[in-house]
Amino acid sequence: MNIRPLHDRVVIKRLEEEQKTPGGIVIPDSAAEKPQRGEVVAVGNGKALENGDVRKPEVAVGDKVMFGKFSGTEIKIDGEEVVVMREDDILAVLG
Amino acid sequence: MNIRPLHDRVVIKRLEEEQKTPGGIVIPDSAAEKPQRGEVVAVGNGKALENGDVRKPEVAVGDKVMFGKFSGTEIKIDGEEVVVMREDDILAVLG
Amino acid sequence: MNIRPLHDRVVIKRLEEEQKTPGGIVIPDSAAEKPQRGEVVAVGNGKALENGDVRKPEVAVGDKVMFGKFSGTEIKIDGEEVVVMREDDILAVLG
Amino acid sequence: MNIRPLHDRVVIKRLEEEQKTPGGIVIPDSAAEKPQRGEVVAVGNGKALENGDVRKPEVAVGDKVMFGKFSGTEIKIDGEEVVVMREDDILAVLG
Amino acid sequence: MNIRPLHDRVVIKRLEEEQKTPGGIVIPDSAAEKPQRGEVVAVGNGKALENGDVRKPEVAVGDKVMFGKFSGTEIKIDGEEVVVMREDDILAVLG
Amino acid sequence: MNIRPLHDRVVIKRLEEEQKTPGGIVIPDSAAEKPQRGEVVAVGNGKALENGDVRKPEVAVGDKVMFGKFSGTEIKIDGEEVVVMREDDILAVLG
Amino acid sequence: MNIRPLHDRVVIKRLEEEQKTPGGIVIPDSAAEKPQRGEVVAVGNGKALENGDVRKPEVAVGDKVMFGKFSGTEIKIDGEEVVVMREDDILAVLG
Repeated sequence: MNIRPLHDRVVIKRLEEEQKTPGGIVIPDSAAEKPQRGEVVAVGNGKALENGDVRKPEVAVGDKVMFGKFSGTEIKIDGEEVVVMREDDILAVLG
Repeated sequence: MNIRPLHDRVVIKRLEEEQKTPGGIVIPDSAAEKPQRGEVVAVGNGKALENGDVRKPEVAVGDKVMFGKFSGTEIKIDGEEVVVMREDDILAVLG
Repeated sequence: MNIRPLHDRVVIKRLEEEQKTPGGIVIPDSAAEKPQRGEVVAVGNGKALENGDVRKPEVAVGDKVMFGKFSGTEIKIDGEEVVVMREDDILAVLG
Repeated sequence: MNIRPLHDRVVIKRLEEEQKTPGGIVIPDSAAEKPQRGEVVAVGNGKALENGDVRKPEVAVGDKVMFGKFSGTEIKIDGEEVVVMREDDILAVLG
Repeated sequence: MNIRPLHDRVVIKRLEEEQKTPGGIVIPDSAAEKPQRGEVVAVGNGKALENGDVRKPEVAVGDKVMFGKFSGTEIKIDGEEVVVMREDDILAVLG
Repeated sequence: MNIRPLHDRVVIKRLEEEQKTPGGIVIPDSAAEKPQRGEVVAVGNGKALENGDVRKPEVAVGDKVMFGKFSGTEIKIDGEEVVVMREDDILAVLG
Repeated sequence: MNIRPLHDRVVIKRLEEEQKTPGGIVIPDSAAEKPQRGEVVAVGNGKALENGDVRKPEVAVGDKVMFGKFSGTEIKIDGEEVVVMREDDILAVLG
């Protein structure tokens, strides 16, 4: 996917919720809600700070990440749906 | 089109949604909604930061870009409709 | 007109909408709405930034400019109506 | 009037609207509205910026100024009504 | 009164409105409203700016000051009512 | 009480209102309202400023302080109720 | 649990409320409310300040902390529920 997010934006492909307990039992997530996890497909250069520095992003392409329910904007690129959000809306990197 | 956006503003000409799946099938976009993609026709000098630096824009004339549904202000220049928005409202550059 | 706007303010005289297509046909603008274009008649010194610098204005007297519908404050100077706005409310310079 | 406004405040005595067209015809202003012009009677030292500098005021005692309708706080000093506002609420200096 | 306001706070004892015209006629102020003038009884060290400096207060103990109607918090110290406000809420020093 | 407030937070134990006039008469405070005074039991390192400095707190353990009615968050530590607030919510130090 | 919170985020595992008075009597907390205390399981690098510095976090893995009722976002990692919040939402470290 050929897309370059601007400044502190990140492009993420949502992943179905793979909820397994340590024992391996898959806990189905309520289908109604969009998964809050996904894989990073593109990362911007980072947020410009008021002193002119750029805050290096702490995520990279391929990272599995968790984010808030209402974060980002859905867009379609070549028929595929991705979500573009600010790095600040990403909670954590998994694994 | 002879227009110079100020500071961190960007002038964009909307492009009809060309939604093709990898297989080439065009997915018609709901006509009601204005396309959220367009081509950059003019770029300002960039945003002045509080330390006096200017944050160089990350888009250039001719870039194809995606932006939020409610971003920018519609204006007519020589009968042609364009939308003027802040660079921060642009999500990503395509291709 | 003898008026000196403060800091990042700009004084603008509204211009009737001259909407001509490339082919020259004038597209009447809805009379109800105030024109969003005008000519700059006075410019302040510019916005003071938090580091003490002053951000030089990017417009000059005589520039034709576009601005948002609800921008600025209408005032009457010697019977003539002008609008005073922040430079940040100006979208672009035309021509 | 012995009053010292603090930091970026300015004390202004309202002036009746003297609305004359170039031809000299006085255009009565709607009496209901308070005049938005006045004369500066006292000026503070200026706004402290986050880097410790003080932004020198661009108005001086005696300047005739225009300001927004809802700007400032009315106070009575020795029976005389004046309005105290931030320098940022002043639109422009006249004459 | 033994009280030390923090940072940019100021402690003020309200004064009854002494409204005298130049000719000396006392204009009773509407009793319902709390007086907007008072005497400074204690001053904090001043507001910490983002660069680590402290903005020196422009008021001192004993100053007669004017402030906005809804400024500050009423507190009782040894049975006496005073109002604690930010220096920024003080409009001007009188006399 | 073994508790370490973070950054610019302060832990305070509320004190019953001891309202005595200079003559020593205790003025009962309306029981309904929580006292707005208390004793500092723990102080954080202070607020991080945008230039990386830390603004040293102006209160210390043992100080008697006044604060706003709705300031802070009530928490129970070992059965004892204390209130944790930002240093900025403290109005003044008494005595 | 393999999770890396971004920038100034912290991952916390809620702890049941262990409310013991000095004498050791357990005070049951109202079951309805989620406990406002927990153990830190992961800490981000810290908050990027506008001058490019990073504010070192004041909590570490293993710390017992108190936080506000409505702080953070609940997420499930391998079937286990944790809450991810900004370091600024943490009130204090216990013990």
